[in-house]
Amino acid sequence: MRKLLKNGWILTMDESDHEYRHGDIVIEDNKISYVGPAKDHENIDDIIDASECLIIPGMVNTHCHVPMMPFRSLGDDCPDRLRRFLFPLENACMDKKLAYVAARYGMAEMLLSGITTFADMYYFLDELAKAAEEMGIRALLGESVIDQPSCDARNDEEGLALGEAFIAKWQHHELVRPILALHATNTNKAQTFQKAMKIVEKYDTLLMSHVAEMDYEMTYFAKTYGKTPIGWLNDIGCLNERLLAVHCIHLNDEDISLMAENHVKVAHCPSSNLKAGKGIAPVRDMINKGLDVGFGTDGASSGNTLELFSLMRMFAGAQKTKYHDRSLFPAQKIVKIATMGGAKALNMDKEIGSLEKGKKADIVMVSLEGVHMFPQHDPYSLLVYSANAADVKHVFVNGKQVVNDRRLAISLTKLRQDLAANMEDFDKKAAELSKTIK
Amino acid sequence: MRKLLKNGWILTMDESDHEYRHGDIVIEDNKISYVGPAKDHENIDDIIDASECLIIPGMVNTHCHVPMMPFRSLGDDCPDRLRRFLFPLENACMDKKLAYVAARYGMAEMLLSGITTFADMYYFLDELAKAAEEMGIRALLGESVIDQPSCDARNDEEGLALGEAFIAKWQHHELVRPILALHATNTNKAQTFQKAMKIVEKYDTLLMSHVAEMDYEMTYFAKTYGKTPIGWLNDIGCLNERLLAVHCIHLNDEDISLMAENHVKVAHCPSSNLKAGKGIAPVRDMINKGLDVGFGTDGASSGNTLELFSLMRMFAGAQKTKYHDRSLFPAQKIVKIATMGGAKALNMDKEIGSLEKGKKADIVMVSLEGVHMFPQHDPYSLLVYSANAADVKHVFVNGKQVVNDRRLAISLTKLRQDLAANMEDFDKKAAELSKTIK
Repeated sequence: MRKLLKNGWILTMDESDHEYRHGDIVIEDNKISYVGPAKDHENIDDIIDASECLIIPGMVNTHCHVPMMPFRSLGDDCPDRLRRFLFPLENACMDKKLAYVAARYGMAEMLLSGITTFADMYYFLDELAKAAEEMGIRALLGESVIDQPSCDARNDEEGLALGEAFIAKWQHHELVRPILALHATNTNKAQTFQKAMKIVEKYDTLLMSHVAEMDYEMTYFAKTYGKTPIGWLNDIGCLNERLLAVHCIHLNDEDISLMAENHVKVAHCPSSNLKAGKGIAPVRDMINKGLDVGFGTDGASSGNTLELFSLMRMFAGAQKTKYHDRSLFPAQKIVKIATMGGAKALNMDKEIGSLEKGKKADIVMVSLEGVHMFPQHDPYSLLVYSANAADVKHVFVNGKQVVNDRRLAISLTKLRQDLAANMEDFDKKAAELSKTIK
Repeated sequence: MRKLLKNGWILTMDESDHEYRHGDIVIEDNKISYVGPAKDHENIDDIIDASECLIIPGMVNTHCHVPMMPFRSLGDDCPDRLRRFLFPLENACMDKKLAYVAARYGMAEMLLSGITTFADMYYFLDELAKAAEEMGIRALLGESVIDQPSCDARNDEEGLALGEAFIAKWQHHELVRPILALHATNTNKAQTFQKAMKIVEKYDTLLMSHVAEMDYEMTYFAKTYGKTPIGWLNDIGCLNERLLAVHCIHLNDEDISLMAENHVKVAHCPSSNLKAGKGIAPVRDMINKGLDVGFGTDGASSGNTLELFSLMRMFAGAQKTKYHDRSLFPAQKIVKIATMGGAKALNMDKEIGSLEKGKKADIVMVSLEGVHMFPQHDPYSLLVYSANAADVKHVFVNGKQVVNDRRLAISLTKLRQDLAANMEDFDKKAAELSKTIK
């Protein structure tokens, strides 16, 4: 099966950022077999007109909790909502069924906005994997292990066991790549980190964890160990190229150097961090030291929308403002982080992240027809400062078209109905909690 | 003519933020004649189903340069682009015709995103007024006066004369409200400010000016007068309730107190300020002191999109981060600024800014059907943290429906073609300038 995307404005995001103002892409099975100037092609089964589109690599979301859809727009501006809303509601209401229908809904949102790969930390992973298979999205899924009762494990030991079993089961899947996740440096013990690291070494995969996110986390580590969380991770032998450290808001220069020396990967979540008023991660300095940084939406409870367009714009504003420098992170570099940056952070840059011959056909076509997408002096500026998720027109994952003219194969109404039907208990308890807090 | 918006989720944004989960609005000619719970109505000529919509007041954009559309995506990340791109290109290429077609395009973008009133500072104002009349948008238009040659005046004296003539001509129009504009505190003389203030007093209107925006402006005022720009404005007798001060990024506590005592209005432009890395205006402190603050998109050269959805989200993140406080500016307060806040800043809160009986029928219906608009625990959170401009479905200005199911009466393709056809010279010069800068 050979599909031709004809005459689009291609931003390859390859090593040299090659661009084709009038270019073609040929998809052969699940891979890209041609990227270059528009020309004649033979043996094409299907042609898609790309003349009013930017064509970019599928975007990469390096951090999410996709089943947290039920939490969107709940208690957004409430202090310490993690302990006041999130943990109690999760433990009371999150089950296999809700995780499954919510994950499908969240995956729909990602696909519709051009995210073709995401990395997730949550519970009920078999449900998530099944959902990813059905929706046709590339998913790195890690069981969330925490040192307290969670919705699918009584303690961290059980969580680790679940996590390892999941990895063993799904390790050779085409779309699902199993990883492992620890909730956070301040909610897990040193031994749990060490055991988890052994597991990810054994299966050659990643360990995702929230790190250096909370004020009270920083205080705790300073008081207890006289260290930063990064320093502590280094001491316990868990700072290495398998660690995907999420948030990393509160880093000092020594932390950044340590992370760079040890090739730690970073998932940066500006939309989530800004809404929480937690601070702006020093991404300029991380990248200057050579760290691989990708963008993460975080869950819909924290980042609200599972898309990278508004995130890229917020990222630009936050970094330029933090360092008082308009020229910092020009738009092209930001699109790079959203694509190749994410692929590198997930150790997948050999397969995805750019439009190159031989890579997996994860491709997004962004319409230039919207009122806000003109004039077109700079396509990267349009993507970062103008575009929104509704501009995404066609999306391919692993060679298969999953979004066609802004629609999924499955009806969005159906996905929403399924989610709503499983949220009755959640809504009741959420309303009760909201009252006690106001 | 009586139109009924039937069974919507109405956020009135009135004094008590009344909400109707299932509510009706009746529009009679150009005014609202009923807002309240859904019920039976008599003598209705037209019914619009609002059951899958939030209904909010028309949003108010307190600062724009609407004909600057040609600059969008040009040199976004280039330092001092005002002097390197904007002034040279304006003086070389901006003329009556380009201002007119660009203004129509920009007004289209605003209407499509639910902005029903905007305040503008630019040149060729008769063209802008004509465009506003044709597009059916409420416009406060002020001739931009500057102490250097501009594209329609040789100097500030000529600019003032043009500005006064425009006010005299358009002062009794239903949609167009003439104001006056001075470019900035650092590009205009004290006498020009004083003369301009006399003119706006004579015609009972507003004076808009960029204030306390640039680092070099702050240095200049400190060195030359030992003052802040606000202190200087106070000294020359121009700090009063007729001044609409734009940006106000660099204010100290004394400035804010002075502004509050003198009832100065503020147009805050976070999307523009963040992209430029200029800093985050102390809006929390301004509002705590009782100042009327509205949101401004700035021109498409600076703020890129002429809509308030992404702006509201960036505002939330910026203020919460600046003050390290998640609970600051909950979503409801942000929607308030985008509606009543803007109306107050433009001295129009008796006519627009909320959905109340007797007010002008400037109304926006935001679809709840998008994947990102569910669940719906809090409608204000959805507007601030989830919605984008593409969610705007129907828009009414002064009782007339100007956007119907996401479309204007006039074809967007036609508007874009008209703009493109008049941008040939501009594009050529812009490309030349870009080369000299890279």
